[in-house]
Amino acid sequence: MNVLVIHGPNLNLLGTREPATYGARSLTDIDACIAREADALALHVRCVQHNSEGAIVDELHAARGSYDAVVINPGAYTHYAYAIRDAIAAVGLPTIEVHLTNTHAREEFRATSVVSAVCRGIIAGFGTDSYTLALRALAGAQPAAAN
Amino acid sequence: MNVLVIHGPNLNLLGTREPATYGARSLTDIDACIAREADALALHVRCVQHNSEGAIVDELHAARGSYDAVVINPGAYTHYAYAIRDAIAAVGLPTIEVHLTNTHAREEFRATSVVSAVCRGIIAGFGTDSYTLALRALAGAQPAAAN
Amino acid sequence: MNVLVIHGPNLNLLGTREPATYGARSLTDIDACIAREADALALHVRCVQHNSEGAIVDELHAARGSYDAVVINPGAYTHYAYAIRDAIAAVGLPTIEVHLTNTHAREEFRATSVVSAVCRGIIAGFGTDSYTLALRALAGAQPAAAN
Amino acid sequence: MNVLVIHGPNLNLLGTREPATYGARSLTDIDACIAREADALALHVRCVQHNSEGAIVDELHAARGSYDAVVINPGAYTHYAYAIRDAIAAVGLPTIEVHLTNTHAREEFRATSVVSAVCRGIIAGFGTDSYTLALRALAGAQPAAAN
Amino acid sequence: MNVLVIHGPNLNLLGTREPATYGARSLTDIDACIAREADALALHVRCVQHNSEGAIVDELHAARGSYDAVVINPGAYTHYAYAIRDAIAAVGLPTIEVHLTNTHAREEFRATSVVSAVCRGIIAGFGTDSYTLALRALAGAQPAAAN
Amino acid sequence: MNVLVIHGPNLNLLGTREPATYGARSLTDIDACIAREADALALHVRCVQHNSEGAIVDELHAARGSYDAVVINPGAYTHYAYAIRDAIAAVGLPTIEVHLTNTHAREEFRATSVVSAVCRGIIAGFGTDSYTLALRALAGAQPAAAN
Amino acid sequence: MNVLVIHGPNLNLLGTREPATYGARSLTDIDACIAREADALALHVRCVQHNSEGAIVDELHAARGSYDAVVINPGAYTHYAYAIRDAIAAVGLPTIEVHLTNTHAREEFRATSVVSAVCRGIIAGFGTDSYTLALRALAGAQPAAAN
Amino acid sequence: MNVLVIHGPNLNLLGTREPATYGARSLTDIDACIAREADALALHVRCVQHNSEGAIVDELHAARGSYDAVVINPGAYTHYAYAIRDAIAAVGLPTIEVHLTNTHAREEFRATSVVSAVCRGIIAGFGTDSYTLALRALAGAQPAAAN
Amino acid sequence: MNVLVIHGPNLNLLGTREPATYGARSLTDIDACIAREADALALHVRCVQHNSEGAIVDELHAARGSYDAVVINPGAYTHYAYAIRDAIAAVGLPTIEVHLTNTHAREEFRATSVVSAVCRGIIAGFGTDSYTLALRALAGAQPAAAN
Amino acid sequence: MNVLVIHGPNLNLLGTREPATYGARSLTDIDACIAREADALALHVRCVQHNSEGAIVDELHAARGSYDAVVINPGAYTHYAYAIRDAIAAVGLPTIEVHLTNTHAREEFRATSVVSAVCRGIIAGFGTDSYTLALRALAGAQPAAAN
Amino acid sequence: MNVLVIHGPNLNLLGTREPATYGARSLTDIDACIAREADALALHVRCVQHNSEGAIVDELHAARGSYDAVVINPGAYTHYAYAIRDAIAAVGLPTIEVHLTNTHAREEFRATSVVSAVCRGIIAGFGTDSYTLALRALAGAQPAAAN
Amino acid sequence: MNVLVIHGPNLNLLGTREPATYGARSLTDIDACIAREADALALHVRCVQHNSEGAIVDELHAARGSYDAVVINPGAYTHYAYAIRDAIAAVGLPTIEVHLTNTHAREEFRATSVVSAVCRGIIAGFGTDSYTLALRALAGAQPAAAN
Repeated sequence: MNVLVIHGPNLNLLGTREPATYGARSLTDIDACIAREADALALHVRCVQHNSEGAIVDELHAARGSYDAVVINPGAYTHYAYAIRDAIAAVGLPTIEVHLTNTHAREEFRATSVVSAVCRGIIAGFGTDSYTLALRALAGAQPAAAN
Repeated sequence: MNVLVIHGPNLNLLGTREPATYGARSLTDIDACIAREADALALHVRCVQHNSEGAIVDELHAARGSYDAVVINPGAYTHYAYAIRDAIAAVGLPTIEVHLTNTHAREEFRATSVVSAVCRGIIAGFGTDSYTLALRALAGAQPAAAN
Repeated sequence: MNVLVIHGPNLNLLGTREPATYGARSLTDIDACIAREADALALHVRCVQHNSEGAIVDELHAARGSYDAVVINPGAYTHYAYAIRDAIAAVGLPTIEVHLTNTHAREEFRATSVVSAVCRGIIAGFGTDSYTLALRALAGAQPAAAN
Repeated sequence: MNVLVIHGPNLNLLGTREPATYGARSLTDIDACIAREADALALHVRCVQHNSEGAIVDELHAARGSYDAVVINPGAYTHYAYAIRDAIAAVGLPTIEVHLTNTHAREEFRATSVVSAVCRGIIAGFGTDSYTLALRALAGAQPAAAN
Repeated sequence: MNVLVIHGPNLNLLGTREPATYGARSLTDIDACIAREADALALHVRCVQHNSEGAIVDELHAARGSYDAVVINPGAYTHYAYAIRDAIAAVGLPTIEVHLTNTHAREEFRATSVVSAVCRGIIAGFGTDSYTLALRALAGAQPAAAN
Repeated sequence: MNVLVIHGPNLNLLGTREPATYGARSLTDIDACIAREADALALHVRCVQHNSEGAIVDELHAARGSYDAVVINPGAYTHYAYAIRDAIAAVGLPTIEVHLTNTHAREEFRATSVVSAVCRGIIAGFGTDSYTLALRALAGAQPAAAN
Repeated sequence: MNVLVIHGPNLNLLGTREPATYGARSLTDIDACIAREADALALHVRCVQHNSEGAIVDELHAARGSYDAVVINPGAYTHYAYAIRDAIAAVGLPTIEVHLTNTHAREEFRATSVVSAVCRGIIAGFGTDSYTLALRALAGAQPAAAN
Repeated sequence: MNVLVIHGPNLNLLGTREPATYGARSLTDIDACIAREADALALHVRCVQHNSEGAIVDELHAARGSYDAVVINPGAYTHYAYAIRDAIAAVGLPTIEVHLTNTHAREEFRATSVVSAVCRGIIAGFGTDSYTLALRALAGAQPAAAN
Repeated sequence: MNVLVIHGPNLNLLGTREPATYGARSLTDIDACIAREADALALHVRCVQHNSEGAIVDELHAARGSYDAVVINPGAYTHYAYAIRDAIAAVGLPTIEVHLTNTHAREEFRATSVVSAVCRGIIAGFGTDSYTLALRALAGAQPAAAN
Repeated sequence: MNVLVIHGPNLNLLGTREPATYGARSLTDIDACIAREADALALHVRCVQHNSEGAIVDELHAARGSYDAVVINPGAYTHYAYAIRDAIAAVGLPTIEVHLTNTHAREEFRATSVVSAVCRGIIAGFGTDSYTLALRALAGAQPAAAN
Repeated sequence: MNVLVIHGPNLNLLGTREPATYGARSLTDIDACIAREADALALHVRCVQHNSEGAIVDELHAARGSYDAVVINPGAYTHYAYAIRDAIAAVGLPTIEVHLTNTHAREEFRATSVVSAVCRGIIAGFGTDSYTLALRALAGAQPAAAN
Repeated sequence: MNVLVIHGPNLNLLGTREPATYGARSLTDIDACIAREADALALHVRCVQHNSEGAIVDELHAARGSYDAVVINPGAYTHYAYAIRDAIAAVGLPTIEVHLTNTHAREEFRATSVVSAVCRGIIAGFGTDSYTLALRALAGAQPAAAN
């Protein structure tokens, strides 16, 4: 199973950005964690990061045919980027929305997601583990003993 | 690590209730899946189900001292039960909110959660796996190879 | 046909409670009227009253298998108790929402019902007759001559 | 007791209009049912249908002196026709609002009624029986045995 | 100066309708008062009453060429009848909106007027005098001594 | 009959202020018109102007015992000054709210009046005539011939 | 193909009404344009105009059986006339909503249409061409060369 | 005078729950303070605590006949429990709503109370003293010298 | 302890103003009650009344250095006077908001307070006792026996 | 006349994307239809597609000088992309907003367009014909016979 | 150029008021800074401070004829004082709204300004520099080299 | 001090775009003014312009390490581009939001800024001077004499 992981805007600053909110791990660290989990789950994963809404739409389009599923952290685009929502629906791949933080415990505007309705599920609040749990969800979430 | 899993109102009807929405698994089946995952993760888990808001508050209170974490599917109480929100905050145990379905893809009132803000994280849309992913999140979400 | 009649919170005070609004009949009087109408319509009816949302949910669950239909006056729960709404939908029995008073002619919050959408129909404003009309609706509402 | 039954806009198309929503009965069929129930209840009933808000207002005005009560299905006017509301209040006859369908289970705009507050009661969701139950409510809703 | 006075829906019931709110004068009485004031001010006035929104629109259209100004009490249409608003704007005659009662001291929906913005002015709360003051406003509101 | 006319904030600038909106008449001109109309109607009138909400409240209080009625143009205070609303209600004199312009044809915030509900009536949009019509309303609005 | 063109309220004043907004063409001129386009497209068209909501509902009902499609400019009724909406849905003919002006560039209330959801499509802002484009849309919008 | 003091959900955790917000006193400590004040004021007081909305409704019902007044801290139920509101109104005993904290200085949802409108008064923000001040209010709030 | 008691707008009319709502006591009577309670509690109290928002701000500023606490009934200013809110916060003295009536049981606009969030507590609905209870709250609310 | 046709985000997936909603035609097919209609109307047309809001803004800027008009289907950007709105207004070319589907018959967020107010007109709901009708509107919408 | 600087309510407490929010400078310090900048820019400046809305209106009125421009920090009046808004518009002098703090980074009610729309510009968030930048804006904002 | 000036979408059209609103200066002219002011203030400034939200995010990221402060005119992105807001917060440089026009005096949607809360201050309404005042604010806003 091929999985595309899309990191949205500003996530490239992780580790340097507001560590009280987002933690000290860099995006490279997170991608390494994702890769290790993917190996353990026998998934093939590619991680990309984009600051542009259009680039994320393009990336989703390109995933058709090459990937079986998508894990996306839309960052701030979560709250208004209907073009990303339409791209997820149009591409039709099972997609999981993830967030590093519990968006409901922050500013009020972060409680609204325009993409949730077209995703298979949502995982938020677990830092890097939000991504690895999403991989596991795609892999079937079998207990470790089943591997 | 001792984990209390709380199923909210109407979840006792699972398997018989609106299978198109909630799937054909009974709550007993789900609890068995949770138990298997807990064993694999070396967690001690107890599962309870309550239809009364007050009973869920009581259960959360009783968890103090005996449990290290809570996984809660508040069912319909998600959308208005501030007493449960206050109980989660008062008890102070790390708590994960889970939902079988993607609540954002259903009726509009289901997009509002009054408990999310006091939980550590949210996992929604993965059926039974929402619970087992929550256990894994509590256990540290180490990749399978790390167990 | 077996019919369960559920009286919601505070209806046990009828006759003593705000008679200008709710009339002078006690709940016992109302249940007697319901029983007489049921006899006339050859229905078997059981009447219960609960002040707890959870107890009403439990009662609805228990109705499955034993009853063919439900008549419910959710009282104040009408306006916010989504757990009762989910219970009605989950149990799947034809359910009629009744109110003694015309809820639209009172405080603004009483104009919102969170359960109406999952009920078969609504009858409001006729005092005790709201219940007996509901029974007749379940019995097919044949004209008297047809009995 | 003389009762005026007013069918609002588009109800003349019943039977041909969206049968999945409104059923296959024509308005003539419904009026025949109403007539039979009226006979059984010893009521004198006249049924009229109007597509114009002004005509409904006129009809209500004309009912004063000749009728003792009104049963009205305002159709789409339910949601905005304050002139009909004022007419019901001005005429002062006991008036019952009826709907063939459960308006709360349809589009959101149908959940608002501007006439409910000036009616004696509301009956919705029982098809033709919404009308016959309204007649029975006016007749006192005595159990069949009492006739 | 020729003035058209338009009474909106339900005003034909005045005197018999909710006298606590609208007073005991009939519409004939009011029209007589208007006629006397018109004579005193040397205005030619015609009074009409319509229950239909379309008829009021037609009446406004017909006023072009024959009348120099309009006094309108739109009754309940005040609150939603944008077709009357457009007719007032299209016809282009100076138009005064009047109300017998102080609409702001009644139900909340009566505080919104969709026609005020296209009228020259508003007079509300003076019973029959609302009309005669409007005539005076059209006549130039000269002090009595100036007549 | 003694009548107090209260001009609210910024009305002292009339004639110099935004003539396209408010006309070229100064407040002195307006007060002279009011005085002429008062003479014609055999009313005793005093006109005051205040820019301070507290001063308007004081003026209303002082009117008790000395005046029989109040005509008030609350200017911008119309839209939020609940202290003036309470003063009008507390003093209990019949009070007419007037506006030079049609407030409904201007900015949206001018469509809300917090004082209308405690006034006897509203007259808006007639320039200086709004005041003289208010005097006439207080005097009984008899036709000129009746003087 | 028989097409019914319905002009809503106040459109009979076209050419005389607010020419800055609606242009100088009369309704007769527009109907002539429509007729010419219909001839070119081999459509049979009848044009009607009504100021009454009820008359528009009646006209839509009568179109069943005689017409294959409807072009409607509901004028001000666009914004609140749910009875017309229901008539369009009940009649079931393909219906195109047209507006002379771009309603979104005018007052805010004109941005809401209660009929759009039950129409096949919307064409707004092209003056008389809004109608002729609608005819072409019904005729299949073949390029001119295809005729 | 017999007074029933009702502590709502989660108040049993006082002293252990969020001391920064609620202080270090346990509910037992608070009940002791209440008892001392009651003695000083010659009131008979009983204190109860419930986490269930239904149990609070039951307790209010049982108070009729045995108690002369109620002091209630509805906790989180303050914000949505209309069943408790109806119970207070139905029982008809003078009832004072108290809160330990100033609910207006916390999360926005805590600024709404659905029970205030049916209470005699509200006391909030004084910790344990909120309760003892309520007792004094019931006892007549005579100055200490008057005892 | 020196306490400043501030009565807001219109409270000087007490006893003469709407006795059904505010009772028959004059402000002098209330100040005498406050003085007696202050004596009993060994507090030094000065009572002032202002109708102007600016004067209340000035009074609050002047209280710094001379007073230890403030009791304020902001009257209608409660609902919009952010300048008073800022003054309370800027001065920094412990401040108690009081109301004679239960503001939540009156018009809807009275349910909003813009000053509550910066006060220590709120006491509403007890007539004159609202003030004396506030003094007691400041004095520590010791039971009478403790004095 | 040179016309630029801009297809917004996700429209490149047409034919493969949600055919139940958008039909089976690919964007290439649509562009071919547009080209044929342009030929018939003697227009020069260029079609572009962009997924990025910034690229659409750039494209609009570049159109100045080279094109006489724009046809734009902003896709999901319709609902929030004020930068595109500003670009349309800044460039100043006559612009027609088109949509393949009737956006008012879909999710509620699709009923809001932030660009309509700066366009000349709107055409929605006709599939590919929405574009060709827009070309015809630009060409003057002459009847076929006029070509 | 003569410039009037108006400090609104509570600004007289600067330096002593909430230094964490407003800094340690007193209003005298700020006025000295303003005077120095005015000298450097060859402006004549007078600074005043008022806590009363009416006094600010009076001050604005008095500025006509004597001053060429106004710099105003309306403090809390920013959010609701339409009388000040009207005064600024009526006086017609170029007026700059300034704030010491970034009002958008504080409580939500501070994000609304009712005066911005009638000011020439807004400068917020620079402490004392907000005033001196406003002076420079009035002086033409020439670079230092140009002086 | 190195300062990055970011011009948002459509600002490259300045001078040609809606001169009535934005003035006749081109962006090149503005950048020259900015450069002159920077020289006078001994700042190093680079000016960039982007139409793409993602490009603005990228530019902000790149500013870290190279620049000490940012001046940004987000254009239409002001009103919805949370990704830019997050970028400003993440980068952590002192940032000033500027606008050429007074956004509060234009369309209602321009009164909302999603970036203000994370900026140090806001300057709006001064044309090119909005930028040069921002530079001065960064330079410390010393009076000219201090340079």
